[in-house]
Amino acid sequence: MTAFDLVVRNGRVATAADLFEADIGVKDGVIVALGRGLPKGTRDIDAAGRLVLPGGIDSHCHVEQTSSSGIMTADDFYSATRSAAGGGTTTIIPFAAQHRGMSLRTVVRDYHACATPKAVIDYAFHLIVSDPTETVLGQELPALIADGYTSFKIYTTYDMLKLNDRQVLDVLSIARREGALTMVHAENHDIIAWLSDKLMDAGLTQPKFHAVAHARTAEREATHRVISLAELVDVPVLIVHVSSAEAIEQIRIAQNRGIRVFGETCPQYLYLTEDDLDKPGFEGAKCMCSPPPRDKANQQKVWDALSQGVFQVFSSDHAPYRYDDPEGKMKHGSNPPFKKVANGVPGLEARLPLLFHGISEGRIDLHQFVGLAATNAAKLYGIYPRKGTIAIGSDADLAIWDPEKEVTIRQADLHDAMDYTPYEGLTVKGWPVITISRGEVVAEDGKVTEERGRGQFLRCDRSPLARS
Amino acid sequence: MTAFDLVVRNGRVATAADLFEADIGVKDGVIVALGRGLPKGTRDIDAAGRLVLPGGIDSHCHVEQTSSSGIMTADDFYSATRSAAGGGTTTIIPFAAQHRGMSLRTVVRDYHACATPKAVIDYAFHLIVSDPTETVLGQELPALIADGYTSFKIYTTYDMLKLNDRQVLDVLSIARREGALTMVHAENHDIIAWLSDKLMDAGLTQPKFHAVAHARTAEREATHRVISLAELVDVPVLIVHVSSAEAIEQIRIAQNRGIRVFGETCPQYLYLTEDDLDKPGFEGAKCMCSPPPRDKANQQKVWDALSQGVFQVFSSDHAPYRYDDPEGKMKHGSNPPFKKVANGVPGLEARLPLLFHGISEGRIDLHQFVGLAATNAAKLYGIYPRKGTIAIGSDADLAIWDPEKEVTIRQADLHDAMDYTPYEGLTVKGWPVITISRGEVVAEDGKVTEERGRGQFLRCDRSPLARS
Amino acid sequence: MTAFDLVVRNGRVATAADLFEADIGVKDGVIVALGRGLPKGTRDIDAAGRLVLPGGIDSHCHVEQTSSSGIMTADDFYSATRSAAGGGTTTIIPFAAQHRGMSLRTVVRDYHACATPKAVIDYAFHLIVSDPTETVLGQELPALIADGYTSFKIYTTYDMLKLNDRQVLDVLSIARREGALTMVHAENHDIIAWLSDKLMDAGLTQPKFHAVAHARTAEREATHRVISLAELVDVPVLIVHVSSAEAIEQIRIAQNRGIRVFGETCPQYLYLTEDDLDKPGFEGAKCMCSPPPRDKANQQKVWDALSQGVFQVFSSDHAPYRYDDPEGKMKHGSNPPFKKVANGVPGLEARLPLLFHGISEGRIDLHQFVGLAATNAAKLYGIYPRKGTIAIGSDADLAIWDPEKEVTIRQADLHDAMDYTPYEGLTVKGWPVITISRGEVVAEDGKVTEERGRGQFLRCDRSPLARS
Amino acid sequence: MTAFDLVVRNGRVATAADLFEADIGVKDGVIVALGRGLPKGTRDIDAAGRLVLPGGIDSHCHVEQTSSSGIMTADDFYSATRSAAGGGTTTIIPFAAQHRGMSLRTVVRDYHACATPKAVIDYAFHLIVSDPTETVLGQELPALIADGYTSFKIYTTYDMLKLNDRQVLDVLSIARREGALTMVHAENHDIIAWLSDKLMDAGLTQPKFHAVAHARTAEREATHRVISLAELVDVPVLIVHVSSAEAIEQIRIAQNRGIRVFGETCPQYLYLTEDDLDKPGFEGAKCMCSPPPRDKANQQKVWDALSQGVFQVFSSDHAPYRYDDPEGKMKHGSNPPFKKVANGVPGLEARLPLLFHGISEGRIDLHQFVGLAATNAAKLYGIYPRKGTIAIGSDADLAIWDPEKEVTIRQADLHDAMDYTPYEGLTVKGWPVITISRGEVVAEDGKVTEERGRGQFLRCDRSPLARS
Ligand SMILES: [Zn+2]
Ligand SMILES: [Zn+2]
Ligand SMILES: [Zn+2]
Ligand SMILES: [Zn+2]
Ligand SMILES: [Zn+2]
Ligand SMILES: [Zn+2]
Ligand SMILES: [Zn+2]
Ligand SMILES: [Zn+2]
Repeated sequence: MTAFDLVVRNGRVATAADLFEADIGVKDGVIVALGRGLPKGTRDIDAAGRLVLPGGIDSHCHVEQTSSSGIMTADDFYSATRSAAGGGTTTIIPFAAQHRGMSLRTVVRDYHACATPKAVIDYAFHLIVSDPTETVLGQELPALIADGYTSFKIYTTYDMLKLNDRQVLDVLSIARREGALTMVHAENHDIIAWLSDKLMDAGLTQPKFHAVAHARTAEREATHRVISLAELVDVPVLIVHVSSAEAIEQIRIAQNRGIRVFGETCPQYLYLTEDDLDKPGFEGAKCMCSPPPRDKANQQKVWDALSQGVFQVFSSDHAPYRYDDPEGKMKHGSNPPFKKVANGVPGLEARLPLLFHGISEGRIDLHQFVGLAATNAAKLYGIYPRKGTIAIGSDADLAIWDPEKEVTIRQADLHDAMDYTPYEGLTVKGWPVITISRGEVVAEDGKVTEERGRGQFLRCDRSPLARS
Repeated sequence: MTAFDLVVRNGRVATAADLFEADIGVKDGVIVALGRGLPKGTRDIDAAGRLVLPGGIDSHCHVEQTSSSGIMTADDFYSATRSAAGGGTTTIIPFAAQHRGMSLRTVVRDYHACATPKAVIDYAFHLIVSDPTETVLGQELPALIADGYTSFKIYTTYDMLKLNDRQVLDVLSIARREGALTMVHAENHDIIAWLSDKLMDAGLTQPKFHAVAHARTAEREATHRVISLAELVDVPVLIVHVSSAEAIEQIRIAQNRGIRVFGETCPQYLYLTEDDLDKPGFEGAKCMCSPPPRDKANQQKVWDALSQGVFQVFSSDHAPYRYDDPEGKMKHGSNPPFKKVANGVPGLEARLPLLFHGISEGRIDLHQFVGLAATNAAKLYGIYPRKGTIAIGSDADLAIWDPEKEVTIRQADLHDAMDYTPYEGLTVKGWPVITISRGEVVAEDGKVTEERGRGQFLRCDRSPLARS
Repeated sequence: MTAFDLVVRNGRVATAADLFEADIGVKDGVIVALGRGLPKGTRDIDAAGRLVLPGGIDSHCHVEQTSSSGIMTADDFYSATRSAAGGGTTTIIPFAAQHRGMSLRTVVRDYHACATPKAVIDYAFHLIVSDPTETVLGQELPALIADGYTSFKIYTTYDMLKLNDRQVLDVLSIARREGALTMVHAENHDIIAWLSDKLMDAGLTQPKFHAVAHARTAEREATHRVISLAELVDVPVLIVHVSSAEAIEQIRIAQNRGIRVFGETCPQYLYLTEDDLDKPGFEGAKCMCSPPPRDKANQQKVWDALSQGVFQVFSSDHAPYRYDDPEGKMKHGSNPPFKKVANGVPGLEARLPLLFHGISEGRIDLHQFVGLAATNAAKLYGIYPRKGTIAIGSDADLAIWDPEKEVTIRQADLHDAMDYTPYEGLTVKGWPVITISRGEVVAEDGKVTEERGRGQFLRCDRSPLARS
Repeated sequence: MTAFDLVVRNGRVATAADLFEADIGVKDGVIVALGRGLPKGTRDIDAAGRLVLPGGIDSHCHVEQTSSSGIMTADDFYSATRSAAGGGTTTIIPFAAQHRGMSLRTVVRDYHACATPKAVIDYAFHLIVSDPTETVLGQELPALIADGYTSFKIYTTYDMLKLNDRQVLDVLSIARREGALTMVHAENHDIIAWLSDKLMDAGLTQPKFHAVAHARTAEREATHRVISLAELVDVPVLIVHVSSAEAIEQIRIAQNRGIRVFGETCPQYLYLTEDDLDKPGFEGAKCMCSPPPRDKANQQKVWDALSQGVFQVFSSDHAPYRYDDPEGKMKHGSNPPFKKVANGVPGLEARLPLLFHGISEGRIDLHQFVGLAATNAAKLYGIYPRKGTIAIGSDADLAIWDPEKEVTIRQADLHDAMDYTPYEGLTVKGWPVITISRGEVVAEDGKVTEERGRGQFLRCDRSPLARS
């Protein structure tokens, strides 16, 4: 047995199924040994009293992406990956987002150009398909899927992104043939637009009306519709950022019927409510995202669905727009109507601690946490077993957690480029104290230590769960 | 007590709730007395051993209407109302159908011009709204509602008729404000169009592929969507011609949740299946309608929903296109692809016997029959108590049924202008032997006896069930 | 046409389906004519501005019955039928209650002896079967069913009444063979006994703990179990006095599956809550019944189930035990533990006004009221069309309602033998101002006018709804 | 790093979450190293091309147990554990079964006396509680739970075993207080007894009527009832050997409501049907077990529930009674009535291959197999992480599977003491070619190689899933 570059020693190692005490021997960035009393490595980290978990995978985040209304996210690949690393995440899967008229190939090339020199941790890409032309569907998409871009997101809302049902069917049909996984933002566009117009006409323009416009019924409707379309084509589909009990119920019903529907939710639906959008002045804009947070009772339903397995994936949907910034939430003034405010909240760094906190509250168990934090996404998106677990042959992407450490979340301590976090002041129990990417410590005690550009691009295999 | 113009004597009188032996005294077309041993009238009909039921109301039929693809129905108001009368129906509610670009006012005027000189029995009109312009929604529709056209149908499919979700919201919003009842043809257009194109491209053009294109999932999807839109606006909605167990389930779920959703089904979903579209040559076209009949197991679900009260209305959806006719099913040739065939089946005359047959089979009881045949529609569409029941003050619209008479349905015996019936050769138990409209016998022993033009237009009140 | 003994003139007559203006002509206690401008009768009552409804049928009440723990109800057949009449009810169906060891025949004879000289209005009897011996099942029950006692109640709880599952199967099997209708008090005995013992042991003996002991889960469990047993035997069953959303859901699920389950609820589940049992001292005993009232949200579910047709019958479950009386609630002292308190609340007189009040609140409509008040019970228990409707040939059992009259319920105004009503001080809209039994005014303006003993026994036909 | 006693080399190692290539280093019966290219051990096994899985845990089997009707199982601890080992199972959890009147302590002592000298592999014990006296509940059960017997089974049926609801509540209450896990055989006794008597009286005594007597409704009823009782007490419960879609639905509904209900099913419900009981002569007795197998469509529902996570445990319910044996199925003659036939089928050895076969058929995936075969049971019953997984520190209980090997099941090749297997002639894909218990090969190539008495007793921790 060769000498180890790194040994993480004496920790309690957890996977999505198991918990055991072991040392982890790392060589060339890969886990090569699990045992007790492993020989000393070039570097030894003592994890006694700590949990050693797979590094997190944030499989839904928007990085260095221009929104469909033309606002650039505050985070680029450097700040985003630093922030991720600070929160125990070792892989991100942001989007290469097509705007209409663009070539998907070009889009992908451009995002690589952004990521390559800056990423601190590894990354893959989902595509966003907003313009499913014949060329896109017939040539670019199949070729990109073959090249390792095996998942893509489509939208049922947003003027510049939404596909109509027929386009959704076309896209799902390609996904089926090529074995790609389709992610869907499911809200009924017409409901939102119609309500928004009524509200705007009535002068009801404050941030809180964003939550009114994005009615729960709009989410339920689109969720049922998308599931119906996927059922018709007989292809798996993932409903992203599910916010409401109504949408959860639709997913659950479909799953019980044997339809292959996957679900994703996000921390904002566990910790925020629509009341957070109803604050003096423009403050509420800090918690505006789509779909919006709902109410207290709904938070419980989201936790329940996490613990019951309705959701397979837990992402941040990090969409960072600074609050007090003419390129952020205030792009259209210091108190613009809600339709003019960039949608999105940050969460790359807080995501895992917010979920981990649920363990101490008895809402989920440690293995569910690992599955939701990393393993399920790795499998779903075709980067398992390289990523997402602690096993022989996997990348040594690890997060060492102090399960007892209580931390009050403060923007000042986070590593993204934002000027606020919606979770400011929230105290959670459990924190990732060391983050390791391919055997290298990238964050430790609140400091991100690794340089830009070390992150590697991950080609994704076709999702084993997307087989027809 | 004045002398009676007509006494129907010794019958067993049934309403939606009651069954009793009584003579019915009629004066000036109105029921003025119920009792036993009423004095002789100008005319006496002995109904001993017979059931005396309210004359039927067929609240969904297409008469002298040009389809959106330009084909005129075979029946005009004369043949249609003769046929209705022959089947125990004394009121029809066909459509005044707007094509895009038309003024609703003009449409209504035109239909009146057709109906006035020809109708043998009474009639009201639903509107069809295919072009909800500002003028239509802002002026014409409210004015027409006030004038007694208090219900209208909208479509989620057909190229020239379909409204998008936003238009549906606009229309529902008007319906709510004005107290009108919205009827919806609920099938997902994009699914049907997408499947149709795939089928046509593959050369799968026979009538049976019509049933494939109009997938059950398409109906379920649109039903859920329309219910969601109505729930959002908080206004009642009626899903017409429901064909599938999946759509039934959506309606049932909504009703259980307290949403005001009404449902209608039709005889073709009780007696036909998709196999009837799969016959040698072009024969299957005779059973093509939208939504299409489903399978045998599904028929049972439709009966169950009738008996359990999921459906309130049972109509024919009479849409008569002759089979062997260049102006009918063969408009585009003797064996055109299914997309070129006019959708619809006749049923005005057979509707009630087909439903009544369910009594002898133990599927529904006599009172459910009366409700579905007449009373519920009268209430739903605002013509109750003038129509739809046997009560003091109501129009003397009666159907005298021989509950034991077995009849084999044959086109040769029917009174419409069709050259086929999809129920040819089917034997049913129970038949309306005399039909009386406002105290006048309009059909007797298989002969329609009344002259054209005696039918009167019925202004509808706002539906008491459409109150918000 | 013969002269009328009575004409009720100018009223708006409502049945379970219809509403029309008509005079009602009565001869020999029977409705013989409906019309307008009927000739004068021996007596004329002007009902202008009033609703004329079928007299109510209270199909679940305990009259002159000794409870299984040996307490006699406060009301005998005189006070009970007076009270019923005062509240617009013209027929009651109390129980001939077998205690173990008794012959059913003897029981029936004894109850007749009580009722014959005292009843002011007509009555039928349900049996209570607590001792299904071979003789009872093999001889007495079939013979009594043939004699017009076609329904019986069984219990899953109460020490001296409960049947085990096997006995229930035996009884249901007889019901199926003989065409009788089985009514079931469905609460899990062991749960109640086990909880009661725990509570009593802990000194938690106040009335409010009665509601704790009779857990909602106990009702749900027994409801599901009884439905299962009936489904196995393939025989209809009626769950009486359903109190909880959980039990409602079980009934609804079964009905949707096509199982013939009927449901009954009572005013106490619409207007009382468990908080009414939690009053200073022993006051809470006034609202103790089994099952107990639940919470506010549950009341809404009961209303919903009424309006959606889950319940067919609405009875009082009148079980009158005086409060401040050594033969009533205080039989075992002035503040006995809840296990020692007679279960039951009065409701014969308030039942219909409490339900009618739901019309003005928009919870049910007038026809649902009539169905629940009278028609459905008449049909279910085999006394239709003699009772339960306003139709030619039916008994002239009528209640003339002033729909606008607001009445505050006070025990002082009621006609039963009680010293309290649980609805004291509640104001309802709508009141029966005249009650007519077989053409005779038995109550008018709050006074019961008819003498004892005029009530007649009604043999019940086999329920048409209990056919297999 | 110390020298290894055993290295399993080059295999693909699977856990309930992960799949990776690694060598497994074993020392003193424990897994001490996972890596690649581990140094040679005392023994090396080459698992190239094979799957290395955790040894199976059969958590429901009856070994050397006298049934309540006095028939001893054919298998003692020697033959049973040999058979288990032959089928890839390394731990069994049979029952220490109390008959009424017995001391639980004595029962446990007796079973240990049987097991200690004979067991080839490790074992724990569930208790069977048939006589919950004050002493049993107050003293013996708590003491035994503390001693490592942390789960017990109770029955709702069988004359000599069944508890009534009140006893179930008492037992659940103790389970809650002590943190034990209650397993329930859920069938309604009265239904079965009532149907059996009717069938026997009618002379319908062949084996196939066993399936009629054990109606699906009986299982659904008891499942709902047991869940209700557990919900009331607020304690987890495990429904064992679930056979029907109806019972599955009840479990699923409860799980969705957040009730902690676990479910177990068995191979007989995946591969047998009630038709297997309907064979000429007495042959059907070979497939008689309780609950009985259902129909073909039901098998699919059981598979679905396995893959959807409704079931956590998959056991054999091995209850071996020889067919042609006066101490087995023919105890009461060569063709006794079904009520006289010992209930049960063997399955210890075939269990895992039958489940594994589902992988190749696409019904479950490999990780679900591992969970159902071993990991979930280990966690549920408190022997994890010692048993149930492949991880550092766990016992080296391994099964090496050839996933491609097709085997036709024949009794002649099995190692139990039976004279038949219900799966005779069935061909499955995938077979455990080597079984290793604590680092020792106990079975290899169809031969069980280890001597009697090496198996060790496992004290169980309180189930982490049974925490209140
Ligand atoms: Zn989105
Ligand atoms: Zn997003
Ligand atoms: Zn239509
Ligand atoms: Zn139509
Ligand atoms: Zn009762
Ligand atoms: Zn009662
Ligand atoms: Zn068992
Ligand atoms: Zn067993």
